Amino acid sequence: MGHAIVTHYLGATDAAHIVRKLGLAHCLRGMAEAIEADFRRWPDFDKSARVAHHSAGGVIELMPISDGHTYSFKYVNGHPDNHRLGLPTVMAFGVLAHVASGAPELLSELTLTTALRTAAVSAVAARALARPDSRVMALIGNGAQSEFQALAFHHLLGVHTLRLFDVDAHATAKLVRNLAGTGLNVQPCRSAADAMQGADIVTTLTADKANATIVTADLLRPGMHINAVGGDCPGKTELAAEVLRLADVFVEYEPQTRVEGELQQMPPDFPVTELWQVLAEHAPGRTSPAQITLFDSVGFALEDFSALRFMRDCAQQLGLLHTLALMPELDDPKDLFALLCAPANTLVQAA
Amino acid sequence: MGHAIVTHYLGATDAAHIVRKLGLAHCLRGMAEAIEADFRRWPDFDKSARVAHHSAGGVIELMPISDGHTYSFKYVNGHPDNHRLGLPTVMAFGVLAHVASGAPELLSELTLTTALRTAAVSAVAARALARPDSRVMALIGNGAQSEFQALAFHHLLGVHTLRLFDVDAHATAKLVRNLAGTGLNVQPCRSAADAMQGADIVTTLTADKANATIVTADLLRPGMHINAVGGDCPGKTELAAEVLRLADVFVEYEPQTRVEGELQQMPPDFPVTELWQVLAEHAPGRTSPAQITLFDSVGFALEDFSALRFMRDCAQQLGLLHTLALMPELDDPKDLFALLCAPANTLVQAA
Repeated sequence: MGHAIVTHYLGATDAAHIVRKLGLAHCLRGMAEAIEADFRRWPDFDKSARVAHHSAGGVIELMPISDGHTYSFKYVNGHPDNHRLGLPTVMAFGVLAHVASGAPELLSELTLTTALRTAAVSAVAARALARPDSRVMALIGNGAQSEFQALAFHHLLGVHTLRLFDVDAHATAKLVRNLAGTGLNVQPCRSAADAMQGADIVTTLTADKANATIVTADLLRPGMHINAVGGDCPGKTELAAEVLRLADVFVEYEPQTRVEGELQQMPPDFPVTELWQVLAEHAPGRTSPAQITLFDSVGFALEDFSALRFMRDCAQQLGLLHTLALMPELDDPKDLFALLCAPANTLVQAA
Repeated sequence: MGHAIVTHYLGATDAAHIVRKLGLAHCLRGMAEAIEADFRRWPDFDKSARVAHHSAGGVIELMPISDGHTYSFKYVNGHPDNHRLGLPTVMAFGVLAHVASGAPELLSELTLTTALRTAAVSAVAARALARPDSRVMALIGNGAQSEFQALAFHHLLGVHTLRLFDVDAHATAKLVRNLAGTGLNVQPCRSAADAMQGADIVTTLTADKANATIVTADLLRPGMHINAVGGDCPGKTELAAEVLRLADVFVEYEPQTRVEGELQQMPPDFPVTELWQVLAEHAPGRTSPAQITLFDSVGFALEDFSALRFMRDCAQQLGLLHTLALMPELDDPKDLFALLCAPANTLVQAA
């Protein structure tokens, strides 16, 4: 009759099942709502920049955060050449834990969930920063994240036309295929510059770990909103520095974005606004139709905190939470050694 | 025919099974050997102090490290009042990942494993720092970690007599019970001072998150080795500052111990030696029989890296590694969206 510490488990297949069952639009909306609510209570959170281990092939990061009641962290990698091994560029999982006891409550896949939350936070930012009449979006970089961005902007902002470009034509063809039947008008383009023709919103989603200049200043048009998602670690950028100078720049968590975002190209006093300030109505978002706005997104731990809780609630609703015997069951919490004395009643396994 | 990313899983019950099957002495020896080998190649590792989230009730920490081939991290809490909830003070789990791809290879329990690795590193340090003829150890703090320290010093150093003290007499009674039949001569004592009478080695293992002074300078005797394990976060110490002044102080990873160890009481230039320097024969350990040595242990990520690999090897040997479907299986790594289009063949669950 030990004290069991129940860690719930949500695997990759069940997470996909949740999204199929409840619908992607529903999940994107729910996640956007959860993220927006948590961003509005920004000062409640104990925040820090993520902890990154860089190697020649990519990066592995840990992203912890806590609101004093619930702690979460995400493990996530970024390896641009992984597709050559048949592996996704980005893989992730995460944990929710109880701050009062330190007991882990949930272990969840976050590969699919990260794709949803990244698209959701892009949409949340664009709702505050893009022109309300934005209907045409350029989508530059047509990899694993692109469908989620396309559909988040379709369902949450009313974007109806996508202009696509990727250096890998197969990636674009895959995106076109996957968006068939969604009602989106998709237009493959010959270049990033071509894709930006007539776009109200420009989303950059490229994976190369390099200082690239996908978007240059000459391609900007008054009133554009740039949703810069791909540049997210030191040495990995997508925009020319001049683009940042011409735009009003919004970020998630300033100390992290100064190191990881497009912002790494700019002097330390380059002015930015944290998105939560706009959502909490402490700072203006877009102030005129001609203004160029830029969301320099790198991904912040709070978004995963919101996403983990949203997915847990969905899993609970659908009866898809399993349990994992990750922690020992002890009769006396000071007697860990007892585990070694008596043979275990049964070999409790993940089930 | 997707590319499956296999994450192995080692749960709490199976970890206990490994230790029962192979024997605690064998596991402590193997873990000490693994830790010593990894400490000797210290410069190979990308090291950082752990990331702590403190709250009123305790702390939750992430401890990442990498040697360029394998990355590991541990999640661990420390909540001194958890026993009131029937929960262990310390609970932990950890991950091994492949640096080249970022794929997680193993998710493992680390509650039991942390108890073993903490005892193993204490023994490794004592082999280099205690007098070789040390046979009597005071063990102050008789909680969950105490049996492991007792048996590590018995099997790896030849300690035959233990002098025990804890403010909770039930904890001491439990320790006496658990050590029956091990060949150790155990002597419950009336106070910490009493326990230290005649001791060659003094191990402090208390859990209170407070600046305590379990060991004061008047209790020191020439030739003693102090194995200070309980003080391991800001505001949590066990020794009077004078004890550090009278001893030669050895630490795991200096930047972390300056903040978390007994060392937090001392000025920033107080001299210490990193243990790896002694193990790699770059610095002397004990230099005379009368010298007082002090291992100011806080627990470092490298020890978990070694312990995770040791336990994985044991689990593999005994056929106890299970698999977890934590990552999605994709035909095309750029097509994460495909998960949402086709219904999954089967609901693959943790098994």
